[in-house]
Amino acid sequence: MQTVFHLIAADPQQQRTALTIAENLTDDNAVEIEDIAIVAQADGIEPLTAGGDGSDMVESLLEKGIAVKACSNTLELQDLAESELVDGVETVPSGGGELTRLQSEGYAYIRP
Amino acid sequence: MQTVFHLIAADPQQQRTALTIAENLTDDNAVEIEDIAIVAQADGIEPLTAGGDGSDMVESLLEKGIAVKACSNTLELQDLAESELVDGVETVPSGGGELTRLQSEGYAYIRP
Amino acid sequence: MQTVFHLIAADPQQQRTALTIAENLTDDNAVEIEDIAIVAQADGIEPLTAGGDGSDMVESLLEKGIAVKACSNTLELQDLAESELVDGVETVPSGGGELTRLQSEGYAYIRP
Repeated sequence: MQTVFHLIAADPQQQRTALTIAENLTDDNAVEIEDIAIVAQADGIEPLTAGGDGSDMVESLLEKGIAVKACSNTLELQDLAESELVDGVETVPSGGGELTRLQSEGYAYIRP
Repeated sequence: MQTVFHLIAADPQQQRTALTIAENLTDDNAVEIEDIAIVAQADGIEPLTAGGDGSDMVESLLEKGIAVKACSNTLELQDLAESELVDGVETVPSGGGELTRLQSEGYAYIRP
Repeated sequence: MQTVFHLIAADPQQQRTALTIAENLTDDNAVEIEDIAIVAQADGIEPLTAGGDGSDMVESLLEKGIAVKACSNTLELQDLAESELVDGVETVPSGGGELTRLQSEGYAYIRP
């Protein structure tokens, strides 16, 4: 099974909860998870920025093999360069496009 | 691929972000999108009302061929007539039913 | 068709809206719904606790045959015992795992 998490909430506490739910999924032995991805956009981009609030959790998730993807439209809108993101974060043309593509491949969608 | 956006947040800024993400999807050449729908219910109905906050964006999305659907339960609860909606907005018996139906047809689901 | 609702919002009004949308789905004759489930986690657990705000609605949904599931990680984090939950509520190892499992079985996902 495969799961994509949609990180879009602005509230830092809500963002941390979202990342914790992703992490907990890696520890759930009741389901066989092959791939986990996180797609972040709008205000949800903050934890993906180097030194940003929650970036410690994103680094830890990347180390566990979770794919973390930033929406390029958001980067442009917030005047953020790719070099300002946590090392290992990928970019995708649009968050909506990536979320559609992954679901069409069979990923379950979770929006914490 | 097909995508349905769930418009339910009460915050006007969050509603505008949701509609922007839908619009950005029409510009993403990395994915082949055939159909986009928006299902609005509860407080998310506001941008679908004629003259409502965000209705300019809904009009623009309708012109681009995006289907915009209002939950009839919400209309009844808020004492709104179909004639008060932006021209071109459809109604569906229930938001939950329509979101289920579209996903069962293969639509990806995104809740901004 | 089958539908799972994700109950995670902290706001009591938003929780009641979520439960109302689940209830409305049982009344929508335009779609043939076989199974409805609710998976609650984080702050969304409150209506599943006996005597908690919204627990009257959860009791009513259980009577209608809707499956209501509490995330065990959340119970542990909030120091809640299973005996403190509304009678009939099940527990699952993790909310994210259960939401993935149900979607992989064909459930539509709705996050009010």
